[in-house]
Amino acid sequence: MIAIGIDIGGTSIKGAAVYDDGKMLDVFSLPVIKGEPGEITIDKLIDLVEIYIKDQGIADKIVGIGIGIPGLLDVDKGIVVSSNNLNWYDLPIVKLFQDRLPYPVRIANDANVAAYGEAIYGAGKGVPYVIMLTLGTGVGGGIVLDGELYEGNKGQGAELGHVVVQYGGRQCTCGRKGCLERYASATALVMDTKEAMEQHPESLMHKIVAEHGKIDGRIAFMAARQGDPAGLAVVEQYIYHLSEGILNYCNIFRPNIVILSGGIANEGDYLFDQINAYLPKENYGFPKSPAVTVVPAKLGYDSGKIGAAALFLHEKNH
Amino acid sequence: MIAIGIDIGGTSIKGAAVYDDGKMLDVFSLPVIKGEPGEITIDKLIDLVEIYIKDQGIADKIVGIGIGIPGLLDVDKGIVVSSNNLNWYDLPIVKLFQDRLPYPVRIANDANVAAYGEAIYGAGKGVPYVIMLTLGTGVGGGIVLDGELYEGNKGQGAELGHVVVQYGGRQCTCGRKGCLERYASATALVMDTKEAMEQHPESLMHKIVAEHGKIDGRIAFMAARQGDPAGLAVVEQYIYHLSEGILNYCNIFRPNIVILSGGIANEGDYLFDQINAYLPKENYGFPKSPAVTVVPAKLGYDSGKIGAAALFLHEKNH
Repeated sequence: MIAIGIDIGGTSIKGAAVYDDGKMLDVFSLPVIKGEPGEITIDKLIDLVEIYIKDQGIADKIVGIGIGIPGLLDVDKGIVVSSNNLNWYDLPIVKLFQDRLPYPVRIANDANVAAYGEAIYGAGKGVPYVIMLTLGTGVGGGIVLDGELYEGNKGQGAELGHVVVQYGGRQCTCGRKGCLERYASATALVMDTKEAMEQHPESLMHKIVAEHGKIDGRIAFMAARQGDPAGLAVVEQYIYHLSEGILNYCNIFRPNIVILSGGIANEGDYLFDQINAYLPKENYGFPKSPAVTVVPAKLGYDSGKIGAAALFLHEKNH
Repeated sequence: MIAIGIDIGGTSIKGAAVYDDGKMLDVFSLPVIKGEPGEITIDKLIDLVEIYIKDQGIADKIVGIGIGIPGLLDVDKGIVVSSNNLNWYDLPIVKLFQDRLPYPVRIANDANVAAYGEAIYGAGKGVPYVIMLTLGTGVGGGIVLDGELYEGNKGQGAELGHVVVQYGGRQCTCGRKGCLERYASATALVMDTKEAMEQHPESLMHKIVAEHGKIDGRIAFMAARQGDPAGLAVVEQYIYHLSEGILNYCNIFRPNIVILSGGIANEGDYLFDQINAYLPKENYGFPKSPAVTVVPAKLGYDSGKIGAAALFLHEKNH
């Protein structure tokens, strides 16, 4: 049994055939051309999928096509309601696919789909209750409850970065003030690093940036590992902000594990040990409530393709 | 078809037979005696349930017994893990019932059960996605997704009052700092009212308290309705705190409606109109995301009994 998993991003669309054990065949790829109408891009994509299926000789084994898309969708109607990055509005993507291909098609939010891939075939394999947070420009996320992807009403929920953790706090791109995204994203970490560097001209971070070439999410961690007080303070604050956000989701969902993805998750045990030491101290009902472990994602950029395919593969497994 | 719904509280246990249209027969009641071992209380309760079933002549129509309990439960194992108010720890309540009665028995958190009653038979009747927040001493809540009660892993989630909305904010009884409960409960409203009264000796609130006899959650609302600036400021801040908490759950679950229960919900249109005017301004993705309406609960104290019974009645209806 095979499903096609497609991951639509702001600059390129990638896809692959995925077996029900999570193994992927070759990846196909299509650039997203700025300003091109969505209908045209999807038409090119379907051409590519048709050729791919023929080349791979898998036409009779495919159970469906899953697609992860950034933006606001109506998954019940199969429509991209609005995707600002892609400039797609009210695009009936499922209908466009089904007009030309004989397979069932499903769409879901890209962050949700990536979380589903990680939960079913990656770091959450075999674990029933899983939350994933993707720490990048923003904070995305996904919720898997008892092995099923939970997307909220019409697939429009699970906006785990857009939950206020500081009344009237930092201005968020979504319009609200104080969203988790403004404290736990890589962007937020960079902002906090810059601020600390301004306040601490003596900090090792200046030397590291000079060698490294730019300020990114790694600087404060590199300085902290060498004992730099200003770097340690930035990391400590970041871990506090992130951990309290994780605990919020623990109190709502009681996941067995929380998966972190994005560049920051590459900080390894240094990061994860500190988060896992923080959580039990503040977990509501702990130690009698189920323990939670925070772990790094395993599938990297493949989580979106695998998760999109899993929309069909996993259901069939049930 | 009938189920017995039992609502266990800190001072009394109440129960009733409930039909699958939500109609209740007579209510039975048992006081909770401080210091009495849980096994003894449950034994008395089962005596009472046996007599009730016999008196009502409903033995052959009962499909199950649902029980709402405050505290930390393991609903899969049917155990009260810890209930501080009742002083019950590791109490195998489902087994105790099933040893003496021939019906299936289920337990769930009291706030979750009340939300389920309101969602299925009260203010949320016929609506698929419902969140309820109970604004009392603390903030409790429940989540109903596509008509099903969502309790979190082992029934230990949905602690909607224990989500941090202010990093390092007001100390919560749960150990964390800045939980929604410390800003949106009746207790928080009273605290804010007292503080405003201290700062504003000229406020109408002093006169209202003198007539009213004590400071409770109604004082600031009574003053605000008469245009008192300090009272208006307290109400405005309370609505802001509560509405941002509601919006957090909108971004996670996208409920069709949010039900508020507790004394504060009696403030009527004056309160609900202001909340419903606030939400669209800050709702992520609004106006393209599903609209949400905030409404008062309808079932009052019966929601717990009806919701506990619904654990059996609604499933059978599916």
